[in-house]
Amino acid sequence: MIYFNCDYNEGAHPAILKKLADTNFEQTIGYGEDVYCAQAAEMIRNLCEKEDAAVHFVVGGTQANLTVIDAALRPYQGALCAASGHINVHETGAVEATGHKVLGLPHMDGKITAAQVTEVMEKHLADASAEHTVQPKLVYISSPTEFGTLYTRAELEALHETCRRYGLYLFLDGARMSYGLAASGNDVTLPVLAKCCDVFYLGGTKCGALFGEAIVITNPELKQDFRYMIKQKGGMLAKGRLLGIQFLELLKDNMKMYMELAEHADRLADRIRAAFQEKGFELVCENTTNQIFVILPNAAVKALSEQFVLSLDQVVDDGHQMVRICTSWATKEEDADKLIQAIRQI
Amino acid sequence: MIYFNCDYNEGAHPAILKKLADTNFEQTIGYGEDVYCAQAAEMIRNLCEKEDAAVHFVVGGTQANLTVIDAALRPYQGALCAASGHINVHETGAVEATGHKVLGLPHMDGKITAAQVTEVMEKHLADASAEHTVQPKLVYISSPTEFGTLYTRAELEALHETCRRYGLYLFLDGARMSYGLAASGNDVTLPVLAKCCDVFYLGGTKCGALFGEAIVITNPELKQDFRYMIKQKGGMLAKGRLLGIQFLELLKDNMKMYMELAEHADRLADRIRAAFQEKGFELVCENTTNQIFVILPNAAVKALSEQFVLSLDQVVDDGHQMVRICTSWATKEEDADKLIQAIRQI
Amino acid sequence: MIYFNCDYNEGAHPAILKKLADTNFEQTIGYGEDVYCAQAAEMIRNLCEKEDAAVHFVVGGTQANLTVIDAALRPYQGALCAASGHINVHETGAVEATGHKVLGLPHMDGKITAAQVTEVMEKHLADASAEHTVQPKLVYISSPTEFGTLYTRAELEALHETCRRYGLYLFLDGARMSYGLAASGNDVTLPVLAKCCDVFYLGGTKCGALFGEAIVITNPELKQDFRYMIKQKGGMLAKGRLLGIQFLELLKDNMKMYMELAEHADRLADRIRAAFQEKGFELVCENTTNQIFVILPNAAVKALSEQFVLSLDQVVDDGHQMVRICTSWATKEEDADKLIQAIRQI
Amino acid sequence: MIYFNCDYNEGAHPAILKKLADTNFEQTIGYGEDVYCAQAAEMIRNLCEKEDAAVHFVVGGTQANLTVIDAALRPYQGALCAASGHINVHETGAVEATGHKVLGLPHMDGKITAAQVTEVMEKHLADASAEHTVQPKLVYISSPTEFGTLYTRAELEALHETCRRYGLYLFLDGARMSYGLAASGNDVTLPVLAKCCDVFYLGGTKCGALFGEAIVITNPELKQDFRYMIKQKGGMLAKGRLLGIQFLELLKDNMKMYMELAEHADRLADRIRAAFQEKGFELVCENTTNQIFVILPNAAVKALSEQFVLSLDQVVDDGHQMVRICTSWATKEEDADKLIQAIRQI
Repeated sequence: MIYFNCDYNEGAHPAILKKLADTNFEQTIGYGEDVYCAQAAEMIRNLCEKEDAAVHFVVGGTQANLTVIDAALRPYQGALCAASGHINVHETGAVEATGHKVLGLPHMDGKITAAQVTEVMEKHLADASAEHTVQPKLVYISSPTEFGTLYTRAELEALHETCRRYGLYLFLDGARMSYGLAASGNDVTLPVLAKCCDVFYLGGTKCGALFGEAIVITNPELKQDFRYMIKQKGGMLAKGRLLGIQFLELLKDNMKMYMELAEHADRLADRIRAAFQEKGFELVCENTTNQIFVILPNAAVKALSEQFVLSLDQVVDDGHQMVRICTSWATKEEDADKLIQAIRQI
Repeated sequence: MIYFNCDYNEGAHPAILKKLADTNFEQTIGYGEDVYCAQAAEMIRNLCEKEDAAVHFVVGGTQANLTVIDAALRPYQGALCAASGHINVHETGAVEATGHKVLGLPHMDGKITAAQVTEVMEKHLADASAEHTVQPKLVYISSPTEFGTLYTRAELEALHETCRRYGLYLFLDGARMSYGLAASGNDVTLPVLAKCCDVFYLGGTKCGALFGEAIVITNPELKQDFRYMIKQKGGMLAKGRLLGIQFLELLKDNMKMYMELAEHADRLADRIRAAFQEKGFELVCENTTNQIFVILPNAAVKALSEQFVLSLDQVVDDGHQMVRICTSWATKEEDADKLIQAIRQI
Repeated sequence: MIYFNCDYNEGAHPAILKKLADTNFEQTIGYGEDVYCAQAAEMIRNLCEKEDAAVHFVVGGTQANLTVIDAALRPYQGALCAASGHINVHETGAVEATGHKVLGLPHMDGKITAAQVTEVMEKHLADASAEHTVQPKLVYISSPTEFGTLYTRAELEALHETCRRYGLYLFLDGARMSYGLAASGNDVTLPVLAKCCDVFYLGGTKCGALFGEAIVITNPELKQDFRYMIKQKGGMLAKGRLLGIQFLELLKDNMKMYMELAEHADRLADRIRAAFQEKGFELVCENTTNQIFVILPNAAVKALSEQFVLSLDQVVDDGHQMVRICTSWATKEEDADKLIQAIRQI
Repeated sequence: MIYFNCDYNEGAHPAILKKLADTNFEQTIGYGEDVYCAQAAEMIRNLCEKEDAAVHFVVGGTQANLTVIDAALRPYQGALCAASGHINVHETGAVEATGHKVLGLPHMDGKITAAQVTEVMEKHLADASAEHTVQPKLVYISSPTEFGTLYTRAELEALHETCRRYGLYLFLDGARMSYGLAASGNDVTLPVLAKCCDVFYLGGTKCGALFGEAIVITNPELKQDFRYMIKQKGGMLAKGRLLGIQFLELLKDNMKMYMELAEHADRLADRIRAAFQEKGFELVCENTTNQIFVILPNAAVKALSEQFVLSLDQVVDDGHQMVRICTSWATKEEDADKLIQAIRQI
């Protein structure tokens, strides 16, 4: 069976494994205070053109999300997000477990708008009983979203301005960051993100590393004592250098490997999408990153599932399902070819 | 100004004040372990025809809700409720602050159905990644609802059976209990509630007492150590007898006062509702309890607001607002007459 | 049986009951935004000579403690206190339930010192792994303490300066406030408390009211959005005026009733203490407020318990127990006489 | 500089790195549901002679501790432990952040006794106001302890029986498990642990792996829905197989590598301890595992610190410090020789 169900089926890029092996017996201090983490943080600051950003590394996305959000909010404050947002549906209530309500908004292909945030805030500010409701204080977005779509630079800037106007933090979940940066049509860069977001992270787990997310904090209010937060939430890796080393490899030479791996995945996804469209299947939304959401007849799902592991996300009706297909940095060209051929033969 | 904005604008029924004064210098032990609380609990068990129910008294509804729900759930479990449910919108995230997600469902006039619960549970059980999502474990309903509507006996029995089938707790918020029991068309009684619900409470605050809610726990799983929960959440009143004494007065003689006060309020509400309908104003929903939700032109709101304090709940469009009007046990007949006359003169 | 086990065995001073009855049918808005609460808050600001203090009323002490502490701390911060402090031993982990560690320090008769706080902070600041430990951010003290002792003005000023130096909040639990203010030897006043503490409260429950604690916040950092906190924690009383009315009665005429009631209790306690000492029984600590802690032979405990309900706090050894005896605003002179006579006859 | 400050300064045993590289491009499903995790779990069940144990893998010790404890406790329950226990002092309040009080007990060289637990429970059961205090429900111990000492089989069995008698869970933190199993004088085995503990874990991070702790749950009450807990707390590794693969390597052939690596470290530690004793320095406690706690004159600390990184744990007095020295699976014989020589030359 060939797995197309997600983008974390394999280990890491061999260069990363090699670097981990090469440095294996070096002695460093623990908990992310080693020289590799320092170098990786400095590299990320440079890539973001934000020399005063705080950079922290954690093992996974749920850790990043719950730690950032709990650090940012006072007890009665909540996080606005798309109803489809990862924190709202696929983290077993991790944010609520830190005491904060996730305030889901209707989404368009996984995205929310500055106008929606404005509407919520105007309503809250006008509410004479506001203190009986959760006070929105942070806007959580993901890009690429859970539907593989991207925020444009203009959309991010609008969200940024709206958040600033209402005293909200803007937090971007970049678990699939590289697939967005490398996507056709993308007009967002790390410096743009560093300007627009109070905090965001660059994903490693899904983008070529064994694991790891690099949290970038640009808002000074959120920087203080962040390591206490990481430790408390169980996110402080004893051998923290494992995170620094991996990001150094991924991002070195101006993100060469990080971008090449993502371009590979995005290009294969584009080809697969085209194959579906040629056959007349309906894509759930238009997008250019490594995830493909398509509505297929049950028979097609069954046929493809003989050779391929897909992610069966949702029953649409008696005859159709919504299916997610992911490529990744590790997807073999030949496997994509096989899938495309199978699609054509449905 | 005459207040019709809510049902807690006055103090308590004079008989309750008198009883508090009469017993004032008796010495009793604290924290709800006194003889009055014991008698009130026994009286409630009899009224519910449920001799093994555990009965606890707390000061307010939010305390009752957060204490019951946190007692009932394990950390990864959540509470299903109508999106309009009090715990979802008007308690400043009190349930989330105990670590649990509130899972809002689309509602019909404040109500949810057994079919909706079934759909959620079937989806959860069929989800191969269920452990990435919050596990529903409790269904929270209120009756009367936040829209003044009532669950019928058949609806409660259907919810009860569905909850039993899926291992869910059914929890009914009865902050306005008496207004429901006394409403025309109501077919629910305390014994029915005690049979259908794992836990519910009878409101005192809005129904004639200074304050107080009587929590009735019928499911043995929820009884254990509940007083630890009350104490931890700050809900254990030092002079606990104040709660017992009030409920004894309210409920004695087979709930005579509790029902008469509610009938008074419901009847006045019926008259006010009729006045709005005679003038052709649109009620938000049909109901027979002490809350009236009506959509009024802005000019009508302005006119009524000269004499009356209303609850302006929502802007409907540029020309209309949704307004809530409450009667209560304390509403004077003459004040209702004035309001009705004012409505007729709009 | 005559109860000397605690200071909340009776209801409230009759003047308070009368005022509640007199205002019973006035219509006010809810949740503490009524005119009585506003007047009581203003009265307290004047008594504290702190015109910009924020004043909020809640029903009980545990509510006050957990709400203040959770409002003051970020997630990784904790509260220093005497190991004997109420929040550390008698609130069922209410503070921990909001996510914060209570850091108990060795106490002297219920008190801690500025020097102890300094030592903790110097150690924390010198700790290279400080972020692996809870960061102390608030000092909780009670006065009168759980042993009935009092902080002197000099001790409070020293704590205040130490807290200021290390960026800590000083929070004083004044559940028995009046018994301290009225005690012989006391040199602390409300203005002194308002100068030294970032937040403190004046107890009503144990000092003549049915219930209620008045929280005074002097530090602007702690004022923001405090009503959201109260609501979330279930501490916002629907008929909030019940709190305002009670404090207005208790504190009017420059705290005349509040002080007289406490003087009565303190004087009776002094007489009871003297009786124990005359008989050669060992007091656990010297103090001048309404609580008496004495070590008695088991036979003496048994003898007294025939007529009086005492608080049996601790087994000291096979032959002795530590007993707490409380007087209160409601203790009858004749009951104290009976107790003294019984002590003399042991 | 040579690091002796802790046991996580290096990466992993080369055989583990090799296995990770060999399996790197295999496609497996994520989140610990792969075949490697299944095999590793089965291997651990066999080693424990407990075929119905549930085995879960998480990245680190704090994650293991907070997830297990929050899964085990109801909101008002707390965890008993040595005051020196890791959860009490070095996890930034991670357990309290899940809402639970850690109840520290006086310790002897890092250990607590069944008699202490009995005393606490008898006092709680005899307390008429028990519900005003946190209910102890779990006993947390670590072995090797934070002082490098070990529980004997008899001590564990006594704790087990005491816990069973009082309905407590016994939870053993085995972050340094292998160093205990391999220590001279140890009489505890995995089957003994599986019999005595309701839940415990085998450390990987400090014992030869890059990271990872294997949680073994023997008590059926604690097994249910544990994966929901792991996910919510951010402990579910996307590429979960990384954990399974590492434990398979560490533990295969009847724990050959796991034991050999630990024996190496323990033997070096024994030699270093002997060197200190020969010079007349006072060990903080006698122990036979890989941690050495010694009290040294400041001059000795200074001298050793020129060549070696030590863990300076505590100032004892003006002239002395308590120092921790760790060997590990990765400590080179020649580095230990250098340290011993330096000790002799102090």
